[in-house]
Amino acid sequence: MRPKAVEEFSPLFWPVGLTGNVISVLDETALPGKLVFLKVRNYREACSAIKEMKTRAVGQVLLVFYTFELVLKQGKGKKNLIPTLTRVAEAINQTRPTFPFAFLTGMVLNWARQSQSLQENITGYLEKIRTERIRQAKRASELMDDGDTVLTHCNVSGLLPLVGRFCREEKKEIHFMVAETRPYLQGSRLTAWELKRQGFDVTVITDSTVAHLMEQGMVTKVLVGADQLARNGDIANKIGTYQIAILAHHFEIPFYVMCPPATRAATGKEITIEIRPDRELLEFNGVRLAPAGVKGYYPSFDITPGHLITKHIPLEL
Amino acid sequence: MRPKAVEEFSPLFWPVGLTGNVISVLDETALPGKLVFLKVRNYREACSAIKEMKTRAVGQVLLVFYTFELVLKQGKGKKNLIPTLTRVAEAINQTRPTFPFAFLTGMVLNWARQSQSLQENITGYLEKIRTERIRQAKRASELMDDGDTVLTHCNVSGLLPLVGRFCREEKKEIHFMVAETRPYLQGSRLTAWELKRQGFDVTVITDSTVAHLMEQGMVTKVLVGADQLARNGDIANKIGTYQIAILAHHFEIPFYVMCPPATRAATGKEITIEIRPDRELLEFNGVRLAPAGVKGYYPSFDITPGHLITKHIPLEL
Repeated sequence: MRPKAVEEFSPLFWPVGLTGNVISVLDETALPGKLVFLKVRNYREACSAIKEMKTRAVGQVLLVFYTFELVLKQGKGKKNLIPTLTRVAEAINQTRPTFPFAFLTGMVLNWARQSQSLQENITGYLEKIRTERIRQAKRASELMDDGDTVLTHCNVSGLLPLVGRFCREEKKEIHFMVAETRPYLQGSRLTAWELKRQGFDVTVITDSTVAHLMEQGMVTKVLVGADQLARNGDIANKIGTYQIAILAHHFEIPFYVMCPPATRAATGKEITIEIRPDRELLEFNGVRLAPAGVKGYYPSFDITPGHLITKHIPLEL
Repeated sequence: MRPKAVEEFSPLFWPVGLTGNVISVLDETALPGKLVFLKVRNYREACSAIKEMKTRAVGQVLLVFYTFELVLKQGKGKKNLIPTLTRVAEAINQTRPTFPFAFLTGMVLNWARQSQSLQENITGYLEKIRTERIRQAKRASELMDDGDTVLTHCNVSGLLPLVGRFCREEKKEIHFMVAETRPYLQGSRLTAWELKRQGFDVTVITDSTVAHLMEQGMVTKVLVGADQLARNGDIANKIGTYQIAILAHHFEIPFYVMCPPATRAATGKEITIEIRPDRELLEFNGVRLAPAGVKGYYPSFDITPGHLITKHIPLEL
C-alpha cells in the first residue's frame, strides 16, 4: 500500500524536517517559483514562520513537534524542562487562532509530565502521522470512481497526489479541478503544482467558477482537507470551503473531507476564525489592487457544518 | 430625482464619449491607478477595445452606438451606407459572445433601413439610456433599507454610487461589501474605487468569503448587474454571480438584479458563455501564478436562473 520511493511524495507531504539543531521548513510562499527551505533555529523563529504563513496545515503540525524536539536537544542535561516547554507551548499557541495549536502543544506537555521519554513519544507520534496520512489518502482514493473530476480547494499537503497515485494503481482515471484559493493562491501555487509534478491532469479555476462547473456537470466529487475537526463533525478549513459545501449540496455532488482527529471543540462555533491583515487581500506582490483608503475583510477560514459533509475521512492516530 | 451635477456621477456611469471624429473610451484596465481615456478612430479600433476588455458592460453599449455615429459622420455624403453599417455590425457582433452585441447592432441596422434619421435615432436612444439608468438606480434604492449591508459582484457601471446617493437623500445609511471578482478584479478595482470616491463605506472581500459573511449576518441584500436578460428572467452576468444567487437563496437574503431590457434569448440556455484565455487567470501583471504547464478554465460569465432572483430591476427603454 505504501508508495515505493519516498521521492515520489510531494514535497508538501512532509514539508518540515529536523537535522542536528536546525529545522528545515519548506517556504510555501516561494512556491511554485522556488523550492527553498527556511532554517529555523529556535522556537521564536518557528513562531514567526507560522505567523508569516511560510508553512501551514500539516507543516504546522510537524513544526510544532520538531520545535519541541529541538528544545529538548538544546536543553539536554537540564533537570526540569517543564517550564521551558510550557513557555514554548504558550508562544506557539499564540501564533494563529484557528489551527488547534493548543491541542498539539497540550499533548506534548502531557507527555512531558507523564513520562521520561518525551523524545520517543514525539518520534513515535510523527511516524504514526506519516503512516496514517498515507492510509488516509488510500481511503479517500477508494471513494473515487473511474472518470471522476475532483474539485478541491486550498491545499491538502501532499495528500491529493497520493490519492491520485492510489487511483492510478487501481486503474481509475481521475481529473483534478483546483480552485485558485484567493488571496494566498494555495490552489494554483501549491495544489496545481504538486499534482502537475506527478503527472496528473489538473485545471485551475477562479473561486467564482464553482457553481457554473457543477451545473455543467464538470465536477463529480469534491475532496478537501480541514484545519480542525470539532466533535460534532463541523470542520474549519480555508475560507471558501463552506460555500463549496453548500453548492455541492445544492447540486447533489458528494463532498468529502480528509480531516485531522477531532479536538476538544464541541462544535464549529467554538473555533475562533482568524482575521488576517487586509493588505493580504488588497495587495499582490507589493502592487495595490484596490484604491487607497478602501478597506478589506479577510477571515482566513470558515466553518463547514458537519451535515454538509458526505463523508469524513479522518486521520486515525 | 436627477442628481444635480454631472461631475457627481461616477466616471463609469458614462465611460465613453464622442467628440468630433474621435471616440474617447475610459480604459478600465488602468483603474484604479490611472483615469485615462483611449482614443478610438474607427470601428476596428472599437472592436479591439472591446476584445481587450478596455471597456465592458454599459461601456460596450455606448461604444457600439458611438461607433455607428462615427461611421455616419465619416460616411457623410455617401449615397447608401447600409453595406458599410452592415460590415461594422458584423465586426462588432464577433468581438465577444455573451454580451448581446447582435441585438444592439440589429437595432441600429433596423433604424438605418426604416428611416432617414439614423443619427437622431441614436442620439435619442442614448439620451433615453442616460435618463433611464438614473431611474433604474432610483428604483433599486427604493428596495434598500436603512442599515443595509449590500453585497455586490463585478461592476454595475456607475449605478451603485447612484443607488447610494439616492439612499442618502432618503436618509438611509447603507454599506457596501464588494466581492473582488477575480480574475479581472472589477470589484476591488472599479466598484470599490467608484464607491469610495463618492464617500461610501466600502469593504472588499475575496469571492470565497460570501457564504461566511451571509452566515454571520454581515450581508442583508445582494445587488448586482447583468450583461444580458433572457425573456424568461434568466440573466448572464460575470462568473460568480450564479453562486452568489444560490447562496443568497440558501440564507434567505434578497437577490436583486439591475438588468438591461430582455433580448431575443428565450432562456439563459440560449446565451453563449465566453471562454477567455486562461492566461488571464494564471498570470497577474505578467507574473505567472500557477506553474508552467498547468492549464486553467475561465468562463467569464455564468447564467443565474430567474427563479433565484428576488426582483429584476430592468432598464426601461
